[in-house]
Amino acid sequence: MLMPLYVVKIGGNVIDNPEACSRFLNDFAKLPSPKILVHGGGKVATQMAAKLQIETVMVEGRRITDKAMLDVVTMVYGGLVNKNLVAQLQAVKCNAIGLTGADGGIIRSVKRPVKTIDYGFVGDIEEVNDIQIEALLKSSLTPVIAPLTYSDQGLLLNTNADTMASAVAVAMAKHYEVNLIYCFEKKGVLSDPDDDNAVINSLTPSTYSQYKNSGVINKGMIPKLDNAFVALDEGVFKVTICHADELQTAISGSAGTSLSLT
Amino acid sequence: MLMPLYVVKIGGNVIDNPEACSRFLNDFAKLPSPKILVHGGGKVATQMAAKLQIETVMVEGRRITDKAMLDVVTMVYGGLVNKNLVAQLQAVKCNAIGLTGADGGIIRSVKRPVKTIDYGFVGDIEEVNDIQIEALLKSSLTPVIAPLTYSDQGLLLNTNADTMASAVAVAMAKHYEVNLIYCFEKKGVLSDPDDDNAVINSLTPSTYSQYKNSGVINKGMIPKLDNAFVALDEGVFKVTICHADELQTAISGSAGTSLSLT
Repeated sequence: MLMPLYVVKIGGNVIDNPEACSRFLNDFAKLPSPKILVHGGGKVATQMAAKLQIETVMVEGRRITDKAMLDVVTMVYGGLVNKNLVAQLQAVKCNAIGLTGADGGIIRSVKRPVKTIDYGFVGDIEEVNDIQIEALLKSSLTPVIAPLTYSDQGLLLNTNADTMASAVAVAMAKHYEVNLIYCFEKKGVLSDPDDDNAVINSLTPSTYSQYKNSGVINKGMIPKLDNAFVALDEGVFKVTICHADELQTAISGSAGTSLSLT
Repeated sequence: MLMPLYVVKIGGNVIDNPEACSRFLNDFAKLPSPKILVHGGGKVATQMAAKLQIETVMVEGRRITDKAMLDVVTMVYGGLVNKNLVAQLQAVKCNAIGLTGADGGIIRSVKRPVKTIDYGFVGDIEEVNDIQIEALLKSSLTPVIAPLTYSDQGLLLNTNADTMASAVAVAMAKHYEVNLIYCFEKKGVLSDPDDDNAVINSLTPSTYSQYKNSGVINKGMIPKLDNAFVALDEGVFKVTICHADELQTAISGSAGTSLSLT
């Protein structure tokens, strides 16, 4: 019987809202340890780039990361956002430690090869160092992971936070019964995009296919759910998608969307 | 007999020079573990503040840190500088982990009280969590510490890197025979500021007083040396001040300035 581990991903929209973020961090701090927080970037990187007169280019929702933009996301995700989350968690007695994939070599990636699009300094995950993460958890630390990884050559690489959360959850499934929870600004996966209360309580691969085919589940949600089902296939115990304000109730199964293989 | 621990502080002038920084990191990586790197900020914070039209105000060599400047130093020290050092160390097989004082709660401070000058978000160190740092060292990690601490209230606070290095060295002296090494752009403490080779090989409290009284040792060096002698008084085994290019030779005692109590 493995011990439970919570891997919680918090999206940029929550980080952008100081009150919502603070409520979320209070709830997160109350979760039993061990636990891991993975955070997205939010609008701050785009705003900072604009102030520095660096143009933001997005292709299919992904940021094109040239060297100037890499420096911005390293500053904003690895510095400003990550360290403020850590300091706020420390203030509510959660012993957080802020990390990128480079720290402790926990998440190594390769620079995405150029096919039709050159994404620039973007990393595709190669390896999660579950032994090192396990050692941090065993010293009663709560890793707070920023969406950056590193390559063997010592490059920092911008990396999708959803993908990082699921890769970490899968790697830690060797050691724990992993609960992967995606928190964002909606109450779950919705069956009607115009009705915020139309939460689909549970999804399996077959019901997910039906919703996709009928167009109910939309573009932005598809990579998130694809990742989530892959994580389940690879040993994660449970995946939940919920509102950042409903972390506690979603964990008990009474809010959000639960994903399972059957 | 305690095991040796190297606590190395690298100044901003070295960080600002990519080639010098890379040479230094290669040498640092070759030092036997356990070891800790503490880094300063460099000019990047001032340059970034200028680009963001935030005015830099210095009083007696210390940065006045209002909220906007705190965000800049959090981004630059905690993000850009720290994470690039970590990624470069990983590339030369040193398992670095980038930390501010907030991470793992390793260095807690209080916001400096306003007397004649309001330094803003600047922290005076209250406590170094040697147990947590020891746990990281025991998991074969090399902490790379940025000059930021945190308060009980969850504030990040700008903190002098020299002071952080000596506070860490003192706290770890319970567990290790600590060698504290300040690396910068000069070959050591100079007896003639116009002759870069006029290195004072060793200093004791009494010879230090003589050099101070005669004006040979100048303003910028005084707080560094004061800190260093306090560290020796409080249990640090050895303090060395040397050029960043001479880390290896300085450790063997054949370069730089060595400080001792007698």
